[in-house]
This record gives sequence, structure tokens and C-alpha cells, in this order.
Amino acid sequence: MEAANAIRSRNICSHELVQACIERIEKREGVVNAWVDFDPQRAIDEARVSDEEMMRNGVKGPLHGVPVGLKDIIDTYDFPTQFGSDLFRGRRPAQDAASATFLRKAGAVIMGKTVTTEFALTGARATTNPHNEKYTPGGSSSGSAAAVADFMVPVALGSQTGGSMIRPASYCGVYGYKPTFGSISRRGVFILARVLDHLGIYGRSLEDIAIIMEQISDYDPADFDMTNNLVPKILKNDVIQNSNSPPKIAFIKGPPWLYIKPYMVSLFDGYLEKLNEHVIEVELSGIFDKALDAHKIIMQANVWHNLSDYRLKSESLLMPETVKRIDDGQFITTREYIEATELVDSLSRALDLLLGQYDIIITASATGEAPIGLASTGDAVFQRLWTLTGLPTITLPHLEGPNGLPIGVQVVGRKGKDKELFVFAKWLDKFMEYDDE
Amino acid sequence: MEAANAIRSRNICSHELVQACIERIEKREGVVNAWVDFDPQRAIDEARVSDEEMMRNGVKGPLHGVPVGLKDIIDTYDFPTQFGSDLFRGRRPAQDAASATFLRKAGAVIMGKTVTTEFALTGARATTNPHNEKYTPGGSSSGSAAAVADFMVPVALGSQTGGSMIRPASYCGVYGYKPTFGSISRRGVFILARVLDHLGIYGRSLEDIAIIMEQISDYDPADFDMTNNLVPKILKNDVIQNSNSPPKIAFIKGPPWLYIKPYMVSLFDGYLEKLNEHVIEVELSGIFDKALDAHKIIMQANVWHNLSDYRLKSESLLMPETVKRIDDGQFITTREYIEATELVDSLSRALDLLLGQYDIIITASATGEAPIGLASTGDAVFQRLWTLTGLPTITLPHLEGPNGLPIGVQVVGRKGKDKELFVFAKWLDKFMEYDDE
Repeated sequence: MEAANAIRSRNICSHELVQACIERIEKREGVVNAWVDFDPQRAIDEARVSDEEMMRNGVKGPLHGVPVGLKDIIDTYDFPTQFGSDLFRGRRPAQDAASATFLRKAGAVIMGKTVTTEFALTGARATTNPHNEKYTPGGSSSGSAAAVADFMVPVALGSQTGGSMIRPASYCGVYGYKPTFGSISRRGVFILARVLDHLGIYGRSLEDIAIIMEQISDYDPADFDMTNNLVPKILKNDVIQNSNSPPKIAFIKGPPWLYIKPYMVSLFDGYLEKLNEHVIEVELSGIFDKALDAHKIIMQANVWHNLSDYRLKSESLLMPETVKRIDDGQFITTREYIEATELVDSLSRALDLLLGQYDIIITASATGEAPIGLASTGDAVFQRLWTLTGLPTITLPHLEGPNGLPIGVQVVGRKGKDKELFVFAKWLDKFMEYDDE
Repeated sequence: MEAANAIRSRNICSHELVQACIERIEKREGVVNAWVDFDPQRAIDEARVSDEEMMRNGVKGPLHGVPVGLKDIIDTYDFPTQFGSDLFRGRRPAQDAASATFLRKAGAVIMGKTVTTEFALTGARATTNPHNEKYTPGGSSSGSAAAVADFMVPVALGSQTGGSMIRPASYCGVYGYKPTFGSISRRGVFILARVLDHLGIYGRSLEDIAIIMEQISDYDPADFDMTNNLVPKILKNDVIQNSNSPPKIAFIKGPPWLYIKPYMVSLFDGYLEKLNEHVIEVELSGIFDKALDAHKIIMQANVWHNLSDYRLKSESLLMPETVKRIDDGQFITTREYIEATELVDSLSRALDLLLGQYDIIITASATGEAPIGLASTGDAVFQRLWTLTGLPTITLPHLEGPNGLPIGVQVVGRKGKDKELFVFAKWLDKFMEYDDE
């Protein structure tokens, strides 16, 4: 946001900003490995064109000259889009994805494509956690989260079908936002499971995420799951600044709490103690006990539906863990699938009722700090329920683990009420003194 | 509607009207077999209570004293609800279904439960076609369609998961209406396939159907598939009377046309000739060729999901064709199921675009007249696409086959635009001089 304002008010040029990002990338990329396609010369050229346009025609859009990173499952006409897979090495789509089109229309400079696990599914690539290269950045949106965390770009797009947006944000210590299902068009994005796939945004502040969301959440009839006008202009009327009334907060553990690291208990105790009268713990049990399985069933069945041809025809080009994950879906019965989809409606209704009593839910964004090693990108267990039900969630980098690595607090809002979620998340950010203004 | 007005204006009493229905039922039921539970004494008692209420407190609602029949998959606290199955013989639900509650609240007198095939799925029962007892009335809503056609009740509720509303209406020569998916609550209704199950209404005029729809289409949060406020008050502002502008009509054959009887070609040629400049034939091909299969896949898989326990535990109490139909679903793969559900979105989008160009679609309501014999209830092929996509359809009894039996013209409207569909159907009714006012 600062960058966009500075460019618009001509305090800096886009090429200066892009040059700073390039220098940071060149300094750190050997360690972080966030990028799969990155071309400094093209970025500089684009930024110079952007600056010239500004001189000639004024501001193109709210993102004029702002550099953005895109997960390598989002098509771009000018960079390869390879889905993190050797099977699609060198793939060059003819057109931009809808989200890339929206970004360019708003004036953004696309810096390049960021590393994803294979098919945004599994199979870690070389990206490291910017806080400590021995630790995973999380996945599947590894490169986007790491690039933003490492100051290589101010903002980047990722995606979540299991836990691929919020977990990397938590591990890397950035803000991450998975909107209400159906809020950002997925035209031109690799399809892993249509009923679960969400695009999302990483930034280093809520404002940075909001300014991007405003530009990319236009209705697109080509994405059949889009629910029109879900996200009214988030920054309009400065709602983020109107975040002075405390929300009613429900803290939940839910089924994923079984998987947390022991130190998370005292971290959250401390956090809740600070929130004091603003928060009440609410128990999610009953049908929620089946939610993790229901997500798994729906995701696995869709992965088999969408990827089994690659696995059957081109196994040798796939990572072994990808083959295994694809195969996991083939024995899901239709009955299990229908039961899982019917459960989603019950879960959504129960959450609607809960969020009729509270403004937001807070819970952990991950089981703990980023795990050590790069082989696994960690556990998606704290994302499954929200991916399954399509509720909007934001992770705030408010906690720190025993190894000094960041841990996110996940804030969940009412379906379709993303604007309100931003307002309440901002209140939390201010209350916890993470608001840097 | 006449009955309701006559009762409200005190020209007749409810018990006189109910008595007339009872006399008709007693005269004809031995041949038609429309009722599974019917209690003349209770009906008369209820009508007398209704008349007393009118004397004491005035009109209870727009259906004050009007007799209605309910398909035997719709729960009623005062009649057994047996789903047309020996497995549920004597089943007495504790509560009314939502639709029964709405009817009673509006003052209707529930005459009894009408015959359904087993589980509204398959397995013809004893109901005959009121026009000729050697012919099927169609199914699964056999009793409701036959009772209305035979003047036993003015209106009745049925349901459609395959072709169970519109086909019996076509065979029996009455008006039948399957609303937009999600318009009438299915709380307390037997679940065959949640994503396909629709309640619907039979009557002997569009006004009769509309007056019922106004009363039973309230939003009910207990039915997770309800889309709130889909059906605005249909009769309000007398929209049925405002049907003087000709609609733009698309006539379609589509994949089911392969199955029509040869005489249907000339019948429809004549019908289209009358419509002349108001109608254009439009071809539905491409993805529509897969629509019949997609419906079958989704229905069979859901039937297995919902009924396999009955089949596994109580096979001996089920009809052999029911066992076969349940078994048909067990080998549907999850991949086929997901493909079929994804096709639904493409079909819906294509129909949205088509109905952006035309006000209504017309096509056949069935492959021809009612088939001879009672073993089969006929072919649902002309309903599958509209059940699958959830578009509202009305059948008008405008044609007659070579055996003198009625044949319906099916009118399909935009999703959620049921009110407009009634207006355009009324125009057609007037244009074809089937409007008896």
C-alpha cells in the first residue's frame, strides 16, 4: 500500500521499487529458492514502461507499478506456468489467468512465478523458510509465502485446496488471506479440486492484502463457482481504519487441536489472557469430528478425478509422493463422497449459527512452528474445516515458537462477510500491537 | 381457486366441497386407486371444523376449507406415511412435513395420502389412468396426478427426482409444476436424492397451482438446499392475468427426442405452426448429449447412498424392481459422479445463455401418450435435464394422442424466475384456448 501510494504520488518510481526487489531476490534467492521463473531484465523493462505510462497518462490503476509474485499454477502469457511439475516443464499458456489479467489491469508488475509443490498438492521443492533455511516454508504456496516474508515482493498470490495458503503464511510469519469460496476467479488456474480450490493473497499487512483483493475479486462468469459481489470493496470507506469496536470472539480448538505441539497450549493461553473479556472458548464437537475426514474424502476423490490421467500415462515424470497422493483417491466410494458433501452443508449451517453469536472465530493457523527439514511442508489440519466450508480466514503473525519461528493466529469470519473479517482482524492486529502504523 | 373464493365468500361451505370430493372418490376409487390412505369421516370432520372457524374467526388463510391430496412420501401427523413401501407399512411420523404445515396454516383440509411407486423410485402400484383404466397414470406421483385428473381433489402435491411430477401430469391431462430447485422445503419428505428431489403441484389450472405455491414456498432453514425468496408471490399483482404479451419461445427437441413416438412429430408440427412467429426451433446438442447420463449417474449414486441399507437389511420386503434400481447405483465411481456434477454447471450455464435469448423453452412432456398397461409408469427421459439443472417447468395439457389420451406441452423457464414462467405459460394457455375463463 505504501509502495502504491508512493508511486502514485511520484515519491518513487516503479523501476526503483522493482530494482530494490530484484536486489533483494538476487541477494537471497540462493538460500530461499522462492522463484521458479524470475527475469530481472523483463521486470525492470516492465517497470520502466509503467513509469512512462504514469508520466504520459497518469495512474493506470491502484497497483500502478507495484511488483507482485504469482504461484506457478496461475497462468501468465509471458512466463511459463508449470504447476511445479516436470510433466509440465516449459508449458507456456497462451493467456493470462483472470487474476493475472486483473492485476495487470490495475497496473501491477508481475515479477515472476513462485515455487509450488507438485500440482499444488504434495512434493516439496527447494524453497526454504526465510527465518531459518533449515525449516520448511510450508506448502503448497511455498514460494509466494517465502518471497513476501523475505521482502522479495510486497504481495503474492497463492492457493488453498487443503491448507496451502494459511499454513505457509503461519510458518513464514506473514499475513495470509483465503477468501470466501468463490470470491476470486480461478479461470486459468490449475484445477486440483474445483469444490475446494481457493486463490488467496499474502502480504506484510492487512492493508496490502486488501488493496490486492479489491482488484482481483471481480465477478467472472467463466468460474462457475463464483458468487457475484461477495467482496465489496474492502478498503472503501476505510473500513480497515474503522476497526475500533472490539468484536465478540469465539476461540475454538476443534478436532485439529489434537495435533498441536505442547508449547501451543501456553502460547494460546497467554493470547487468550490478553484478549480477556473479548473472547470465550466454544467447543466444536459432534459433526465437527467428521470434518477432517470429509475434507480428505472430497479432496482425494477430486484429485483422482483431475490427475489420474497424468498418473496413469506419465508416472515416471511425477514425484513419488504425488503418485501416492493421487492413488489415495481411487478407492473413495461414491457413497462416502456424497456423505461428505452432505456433511459440508450441516457443518456450514452449524458455523452460520455459531457466527450468529460471535463476530469471528480464532484458532491456531498451524500445529506449531514450521517443522524442521524440507522434505515435508507440514500438516494442513488447521485449514481443512475452513477450506471445506468455504469460510474466509486470515492468519495474523502474532505468535512466536520456541525456536524463534513465527506462528499465526487464524481468524475466521462469516461466509461472504470478508469485509467484516478484515475489520475485526484489524482490531485484533491493533489490540495485539502488531499494527505498524 | 374457485373453491377457495367460493368458501371465502361463503357461497359454499368446506364440508359441501369436501363431501362432493368424497362422493367422487367413493364412486371412482375402485377403478382409479389413487389413494393409499383416505378417511372420509375425518375429512368431513375437518371440513366442519373449518366451517365453524370461518363462522367464528373468519378466513384462516387463502386455502380455507380447500381439500388437498399429498403424495405418500410427505409426512403427516394424522395419516400414516409409508413411502409406497411394505417396509414402512404403518409408519406414523410424529410431525407434519413443512409443506403439510404450510397447507394447514393456510386453511387447507388434507384429504389423505396418494399412491406413490415404491420410495417414489420405481415399482408401480395399482393406480390407473383416469381417462382409461388400461393405461398407466405415470409415476412416481401416480395417485396425486390421477386424483386431480379424476376430480377427486382440486389440487395435490407430488415430487420429482427423475420425471415423477411432469410425466404423470402429461399422461393424466392435468397441469403439473416442478418449481426451481430449492423452492419448496423438503423437511419431512422422503429423501431419494437430495440434489435432485423437488416437490411439485398438480392442479386443473395454472391459477390452482399458483395459489398453492404461494402458500408452500416459504423459506425453511431446515432444508439446506432452499434458496430463499425464489418464488415471489405468484398471484400478487395478478401476474397470471397480466399475460397478454407474447413471449419469445424456443422449441427444443434435445437428446430425449430420439425416444418419442412417431405421432409426436406431427402433433408438435401442428402446435408449432399455430405458434408461428412466436416460436423458433433451437438445437440442443454438444454437452447436452451427456445430460441424460449425468442425471442417471447422480440419481443412481444417491439412491444407493440413501436406500442401500434397506436393500441390504430388508430385501424381502422390497419390490424386485426397487432392489434392481437400488443396486444399479453401487458401481457408479466417484470420478463419474464428480464429472456428472461438474457437467451440471456447464449445462446450467448453457441454459442460462439460451434463456437470455428466449423467455421460455417448450418441448414435449413425455415421449407420447400414457403407455398401455400398469406394470411400467413410462419413461422419464423428457424430465431428466430439468430435474438435473433445477429449472422450473410446467406441463400444459394441450395435446391429445391417437388413443384419445392427453399429452402435455412442457414449458421451461429461467432458474428462479417461476413467476415469469407462470405468466408465459398462461399466455400459451390463452393462445391455445385452454384458458377456461
